[in-house]
Amino acid sequence: MLVAKRERKIEWGDCDPAKIVYNPRFFDWFDNCTGGLLEAAGFHKKWLFENLDFTGIPLVESRAKFMKPSRFGDIVLIETQATDIRRSSFDIRHRLFNAGELAIEAFETRVWTGRHPDDPNRMKSVPIPDEIVRALKGEAKPA
Amino acid sequence: MLVAKRERKIEWGDCDPAKIVYNPRFFDWFDNCTGGLLEAAGFHKKWLFENLDFTGIPLVESRAKFMKPSRFGDIVLIETQATDIRRSSFDIRHRLFNAGELAIEAFETRVWTGRHPDDPNRMKSVPIPDEIVRALKGEAKPA
Amino acid sequence: MLVAKRERKIEWGDCDPAKIVYNPRFFDWFDNCTGGLLEAAGFHKKWLFENLDFTGIPLVESRAKFMKPSRFGDIVLIETQATDIRRSSFDIRHRLFNAGELAIEAFETRVWTGRHPDDPNRMKSVPIPDEIVRALKGEAKPA
Amino acid sequence: MLVAKRERKIEWGDCDPAKIVYNPRFFDWFDNCTGGLLEAAGFHKKWLFENLDFTGIPLVESRAKFMKPSRFGDIVLIETQATDIRRSSFDIRHRLFNAGELAIEAFETRVWTGRHPDDPNRMKSVPIPDEIVRALKGEAKPA
Repeated sequence: MLVAKRERKIEWGDCDPAKIVYNPRFFDWFDNCTGGLLEAAGFHKKWLFENLDFTGIPLVESRAKFMKPSRFGDIVLIETQATDIRRSSFDIRHRLFNAGELAIEAFETRVWTGRHPDDPNRMKSVPIPDEIVRALKGEAKPA
Repeated sequence: MLVAKRERKIEWGDCDPAKIVYNPRFFDWFDNCTGGLLEAAGFHKKWLFENLDFTGIPLVESRAKFMKPSRFGDIVLIETQATDIRRSSFDIRHRLFNAGELAIEAFETRVWTGRHPDDPNRMKSVPIPDEIVRALKGEAKPA
Repeated sequence: MLVAKRERKIEWGDCDPAKIVYNPRFFDWFDNCTGGLLEAAGFHKKWLFENLDFTGIPLVESRAKFMKPSRFGDIVLIETQATDIRRSSFDIRHRLFNAGELAIEAFETRVWTGRHPDDPNRMKSVPIPDEIVRALKGEAKPA
Repeated sequence: MLVAKRERKIEWGDCDPAKIVYNPRFFDWFDNCTGGLLEAAGFHKKWLFENLDFTGIPLVESRAKFMKPSRFGDIVLIETQATDIRRSSFDIRHRLFNAGELAIEAFETRVWTGRHPDDPNRMKSVPIPDEIVRALKGEAKPA
């Protein structure tokens, strides 16, 4: 599977009064990293919106283990990859490393969606395009 | 078990370009609701910090199912309660209802922490005080 | 002028390691309060999007004075009103009170926008509808 | 004056339903950039907290002009520098460029604070250390 990596410095405003990262921030970064995985696969979400019947990849399930807190000034590395790809949904794993140690392991299940035929304001699940499946699997090289 | 309830109106800035709530916002609200549960139990975290050897209740595990998106202008109700209370950790469940339907069910495991004896900047797990256990169980009435 | 009021309890996750509200949070609440002012005027932004040529009220200018910090557990009151309404832009003032004292005074200039005739992805300024001007001035009663 | 630069890619979750960056996000980034300026000067806030009588640099005044919206997928550059340094307060300017054009110009006034002698939970303004003034002015090279 294709692995996307991002480094991030923990900022002052990421932390709460206990001086550790406020946990919703991690979910913000993981969402960014999921977008980053698509981008690493050669398919930036902006391109998907403009060129395909694509309305996003809403999160339907998540779970995470928080093994070690991260603190202001720490630099963390997040590795993101698909772990399972089905017809119109897929699983993603984020592993956040702090000073080389696994600090968080998070899993997401997301659905690939397009416009609902009966209501332009709603979305429905649609099959993930083949070339994107191949790119997420690392079988195709992004340009 | 004691159940704490909060209503929240979905704001413009809670939503992403797909016009649904950006998922990290939910984790922010759930964190608030966990604080709200302690407050409903009669023990505001501010009081805990000022009166006990208490350094917070860091999240060690979470999982969530997102059944229905929430949109700008929706009013959601979040019901929060402990589902299991152990010596120094406890499980919390948040159920978010939108227009009466269960839209998200989320679970957290949190650890009760106090100051680490060897390093004031670190935390260690400590037993949850009895009166707080009783209040979370709904066995004691908050003042 | 119509004045909209909102109370808010300062949450743990609103605060930074200095144990005061992380300043971008205030701008989030002020944005919510601007939406709340339109709602108090009888025109929820959701309704505006669905019923008018309306694409939002982007912020073009802001300034704020932060007189007193707010802390975890504080309850603050935000009073929001228009202070000047022009053809297609308007000024808003937010005053945040903490324990009865003025803690922040903030001003925004926002532009009323509709769809750009040449490009559906862009916005252009359009005149503020008369009935909304009147409602913001407090001359018309919301239903 | 020393100028600190940061590049940032606009993420999906940074944007609101109008598909432009939700304005409080900018204030989050500007706060990060102010920290980044101190870091570029050779004085990371973490080091300041651990080595000086330092409790932060609360914002006391801000103003900003938003000239152009930024959108999902845009890459923005933020240039941050002090514009005036007084005894215990200083002014900072952030300029956010999008595709080479100035999109936002923001100003902050911040106070240098240390622990209040009478109450460890409060802060009071203290003189900015000389070596930090020199570094912000670009007169001293960071190590």
